[in-house]
Amino acid sequence: MKVLIISANHFEDTELLYPYYRLKEEGFEVHVTSFSKGTITGKHGYAITVDLSLDEVKPEEYDLLVLPGGKAPERLKKEQRAWAIARHFFAEKKPVAAICHGPVILAAAGLLKDREVTGYRSTKGELVSSGANYRDQEVVVDGNLITSRQPSDLPAFSREMIKLTKTGKSRSW
Amino acid sequence: MKVLIISANHFEDTELLYPYYRLKEEGFEVHVTSFSKGTITGKHGYAITVDLSLDEVKPEEYDLLVLPGGKAPERLKKEQRAWAIARHFFAEKKPVAAICHGPVILAAAGLLKDREVTGYRSTKGELVSSGANYRDQEVVVDGNLITSRQPSDLPAFSREMIKLTKTGKSRSW
Repeated sequence: MKVLIISANHFEDTELLYPYYRLKEEGFEVHVTSFSKGTITGKHGYAITVDLSLDEVKPEEYDLLVLPGGKAPERLKKEQRAWAIARHFFAEKKPVAAICHGPVILAAAGLLKDREVTGYRSTKGELVSSGANYRDQEVVVDGNLITSRQPSDLPAFSREMIKLTKTGKSRSW
Repeated sequence: MKVLIISANHFEDTELLYPYYRLKEEGFEVHVTSFSKGTITGKHGYAITVDLSLDEVKPEEYDLLVLPGGKAPERLKKEQRAWAIARHFFAEKKPVAAICHGPVILAAAGLLKDREVTGYRSTKGELVSSGANYRDQEVVVDGNLITSRQPSDLPAFSREMIKLTKTGKSRSW
């Protein structure tokens, strides 16, 4: 399985690092993409290598898309290359897992209309404005889409993300 | 399964938080203990609630002991209450998972003589002086004892920790 994480500077460290290590633990190959190659640094100071720039991503090569939170999504939500990658995953019904501020990228890409989602409480208005139905719970699974609110939801978020990625290809939504 | 994490202020954030969330994801109950109740804060600023003080720990209630790294083990290695808990796990041959500076607590408690271990590279001398055989690899499993070097080893560390905890009770060492 191949996983793509889209993030940028000022990511919420645990929301990127927990899926990053967890999916490696599961034996998946994990790539991080951002505006450009190099490193990105989280709000708490952890640095992580960017494997490839958004320009270089071939989304058809990946089985799961992860969108961590922090301040990074505020910049990424204006980035059409990020929208294009997310739209590929939705068109192909491949798993997308977004936590905290991560779902605002999907809202900006116009992908959340009539979808059941959660996200950080301050993003509720933005998600609802884009047509989503907001639920205040640790994880919401709606077809190919998994969303959670905050770092303390990571155990539930990860459990559903891995289950869906392993079984998702055989499901029909 | 019940898990006990022993740590203190200035822990290495991912080395505490990754096992903390990961073991919850697995459905385990996880308690954090330290010198006193309240909260402890990591080197990168993450705070975590201390569920019980070292005085209150009943080690016989737990199935796995986790010792994260950072600067916390330098204080904990002088703490006889931490030694007593670790000695219980070794006497009962229950799993103990220590990463980075975590193994120095076990060295100070006299538990590493003739054991195969790893740990953060700067701790090698201290571990060898206590009688351990040091190996430079991402994870070393020696009977009930699992050790790793650093945050990038977390996927391998966690994989072995969970496997051993789930199967450990039926093994003979």
